[in-house]
Amino acid sequence: MDISKIIDKGFLSADSKIPLYKQIAGLLAEKINNRLLPAGSKLPPERELAVLLQVSRTTAINAYRWLEEQGLIITKVGSGTYVADLLTTLPPNPSVPWSQLFTPSPNTQLSSILRELMASAYTEDSISLAAGMPDPALYPLKHFHRLFSQQSSHLCAAELGHIPTEGYMPLRRILAARLLTKGYDITPANTMIVSGSQQGLYLIAKVFLEPGDYVIVESPTYLGAIQVFSAAGARLLSLPAVNNLPLELLEDYLVRYRPKLFYVMPTFKNPNGRVMPLAERRKLLELAAKHRLVIVEDDPYGELYYDRQPPLSLKALDPFGGVITLGTFSKILFPGLRTGWVTAPETVINRFALAKQYIDLHSSNLSQKLLFDFLAAGLLEDHLHTVRTEYTKRRDLVAGALEQYCSPHLTFTLPAGGFYFWCTLSQGLLTRQLLHEAGKRGVSFVPGEAFYADAAGAGELRLCFATHPEERLLAGIRRLSTALQVLVDSNAGSQPRPAVTPII
Amino acid sequence: MDISKIIDKGFLSADSKIPLYKQIAGLLAEKINNRLLPAGSKLPPERELAVLLQVSRTTAINAYRWLEEQGLIITKVGSGTYVADLLTTLPPNPSVPWSQLFTPSPNTQLSSILRELMASAYTEDSISLAAGMPDPALYPLKHFHRLFSQQSSHLCAAELGHIPTEGYMPLRRILAARLLTKGYDITPANTMIVSGSQQGLYLIAKVFLEPGDYVIVESPTYLGAIQVFSAAGARLLSLPAVNNLPLELLEDYLVRYRPKLFYVMPTFKNPNGRVMPLAERRKLLELAAKHRLVIVEDDPYGELYYDRQPPLSLKALDPFGGVITLGTFSKILFPGLRTGWVTAPETVINRFALAKQYIDLHSSNLSQKLLFDFLAAGLLEDHLHTVRTEYTKRRDLVAGALEQYCSPHLTFTLPAGGFYFWCTLSQGLLTRQLLHEAGKRGVSFVPGEAFYADAAGAGELRLCFATHPEERLLAGIRRLSTALQVLVDSNAGSQPRPAVTPII
Repeated sequence: MDISKIIDKGFLSADSKIPLYKQIAGLLAEKINNRLLPAGSKLPPERELAVLLQVSRTTAINAYRWLEEQGLIITKVGSGTYVADLLTTLPPNPSVPWSQLFTPSPNTQLSSILRELMASAYTEDSISLAAGMPDPALYPLKHFHRLFSQQSSHLCAAELGHIPTEGYMPLRRILAARLLTKGYDITPANTMIVSGSQQGLYLIAKVFLEPGDYVIVESPTYLGAIQVFSAAGARLLSLPAVNNLPLELLEDYLVRYRPKLFYVMPTFKNPNGRVMPLAERRKLLELAAKHRLVIVEDDPYGELYYDRQPPLSLKALDPFGGVITLGTFSKILFPGLRTGWVTAPETVINRFALAKQYIDLHSSNLSQKLLFDFLAAGLLEDHLHTVRTEYTKRRDLVAGALEQYCSPHLTFTLPAGGFYFWCTLSQGLLTRQLLHEAGKRGVSFVPGEAFYADAAGAGELRLCFATHPEERLLAGIRRLSTALQVLVDSNAGSQPRPAVTPII
Repeated sequence: MDISKIIDKGFLSADSKIPLYKQIAGLLAEKINNRLLPAGSKLPPERELAVLLQVSRTTAINAYRWLEEQGLIITKVGSGTYVADLLTTLPPNPSVPWSQLFTPSPNTQLSSILRELMASAYTEDSISLAAGMPDPALYPLKHFHRLFSQQSSHLCAAELGHIPTEGYMPLRRILAARLLTKGYDITPANTMIVSGSQQGLYLIAKVFLEPGDYVIVESPTYLGAIQVFSAAGARLLSLPAVNNLPLELLEDYLVRYRPKLFYVMPTFKNPNGRVMPLAERRKLLELAAKHRLVIVEDDPYGELYYDRQPPLSLKALDPFGGVITLGTFSKILFPGLRTGWVTAPETVINRFALAKQYIDLHSSNLSQKLLFDFLAAGLLEDHLHTVRTEYTKRRDLVAGALEQYCSPHLTFTLPAGGFYFWCTLSQGLLTRQLLHEAGKRGVSFVPGEAFYADAAGAGELRLCFATHPEERLLAGIRRLSTALQVLVDSNAGSQPRPAVTPII
């Protein structure tokens, strides 16, 4: 075959560090591997190759020798040089029965929702009020750029090798110091860096939960937590959605089921924005101490308050050391850092580290180092002030718009912090049908069912007001109101609301 | 108490965005939370506070009101204002029985070794030939700095939110393109980004292994793989350490145990540098196809060849689609990127993504973006050429030094690539005793036992020649030779080598 069509001497460079024969062999190897030179094709004799590529004959010989060593070509004496058959001749290939080999899959219905949310945060055309994302326009990237380029000296190579599984120590220190001022009674040894608080939840499940263990959750509560605990085989006990934490029922649960954990988001709870009052926090901690209950306190939104600072965290109030608290920079800075933290007694941190070592050795030091520089430069407080101000405006705007366009068929309570409006449709309207109509009109949200372990919430939905600038938010609410009107007119309301509905 | 000792008006700034009363309240809250103002301390009346801090009385009143709302202070009518007791009065605290709550711990002996290695890569004083780390002096950081500061425009915010679990698509594409030129028959959909190949191993264990499943491993083989598979409850079948892959025994295993996986590092195997010849690779693949065996090919060192390019990877030769291949940038660039990849059939990638989503949603996009920029700028090939040249020098230097200083009591074969010398002590000498002596003289290595699933290797050890510059390597070998001489003289050789030894 005419090899000049396939390899061109233009690709060769005499002054490259790579010897000519290797450059030639490399080019040929690539064509052979790509099947551009199919098995069995005859290659030109070394002399011809040399002329064709204007290289010495020795170079051509070496190139072929190298290819032969690689098993890519075969020289048949007296016949010539041929491309070898890369695939040994085999019986017709049985395909691998992958599905038989997989371990049982975790409940994938809920998880597929979360993944769709993350994807939906992409689509250009439609306005996603679904994913709980901060507004990219508010990421403090210019600071990060400045820090990174400044730090040429500081970003020392030694810190980009392997670091301890627990995290980059300077970051653990500055984080612990910050948490101290919030009343946490901790040291850096109680503080571990994780790849987003999602990984914190995963480690907790990995270290504490065996199939059949009980975990108490609020309802509604964070989708991701339900998923991780269910995937670990835990049985979830939902506390009913009432105005106050039902402490008597909780105590019943503690006595009857001896649950391993109580997962709670006391401040600006995802999805409904609830803040647990100080008095309730103290009662909960008394109960926990009495029953030696381990509390998993998830606090991604505590810094994002729009009216007044929320009460002290459970961790800060915890008198008996049974609280594990999760935090993250994904909501206050940007998710791409993949950096969150866990605070817990040292004995627990040690077990987390042991488990995390198998999972990823340690989290990205690049992110940890940049984050440390950002915190050390004292840039966080101003940034928090900026986003609080901006998100307050957006919350008030959306509140107004919902009143104006969606009432009376949609009601809500004003969130005092966090990212979300938790809305209830008037009797008989189903959020899943609303989502269907909304999707057609280019707006999305999360149906309430996603936040219940027991498939309630068919008439509720979550709207995120953080991700988009005001005009876009307004447009989103208008589209939502159109969808809502269509739903109302179509008398979808006439159908009874199913008692239990599978998650879409 | 004299509050002026504790809070100083110097801390207050009239032109801050934060209102004065909140600044004052914040300062006091911090002191209270830090117990600098202990529970029960009496605070000055509002009038006094106003005078003390030179603020209006209203400001003082608002500060106290805010603190009271927070539950941090209590106003007793007619008596005054006191710091509240943050800890509710409780029965004497029972501590949490953590150890009863933990899930069974994975075998921690081996894992503690790996963690010590990572730690030992730190110590300034001693020379670690233990950890398999590239030399930090060779990290191409200046390129990364340039890219990052240039990319201010490119590092667009949209890419730093959440991205798909499978990874940053531009990186997946450029990676797949690169692997194509190495004969991989894949698309980006077959390529998933993971947080270091450690996470790839973890995902494989998570998706394929249930307790009691069999996994075939070479011996010696990579410590981290043994750990992850054991932690998943798998039973490991070791192929004996012989010159060629014992294919007959392998087939026996396949028939008798129907193993889920065969974990193999065909190129520059960690620890002993072995390269599986092309013919053997083809025989292995025939066997795999015949028995529909899933092969996990770990290839961290394939790019680091010092004599000639190694044979095509199993993935490139695989005719039946049963090979899952792991790669990483930790060895060729730097570990701090925490970026590796997995190539597998799409159905397998989908299951990996489902599992990874629970673990960390996705890997750091910051790392993925920077890595993409580095690859897109075409900087990898030159960097590889640089490190190959440098590591070749070091390999030859260490080979010479071992000959000169450590023979005849220590023998080795010259590695054709990768990071390690695999050495054997003369009959009767135990590497664990050598490690003890070596530690005292400021040099460390990994004892051979760490690389066997069946606790063999008491007379073998692994030396990494990549991490340090030549002088330091030489110093390390000299220290090692002194330790070796001491061991020889002390006739440690007289003790019989134990048949089976627990891992230290």
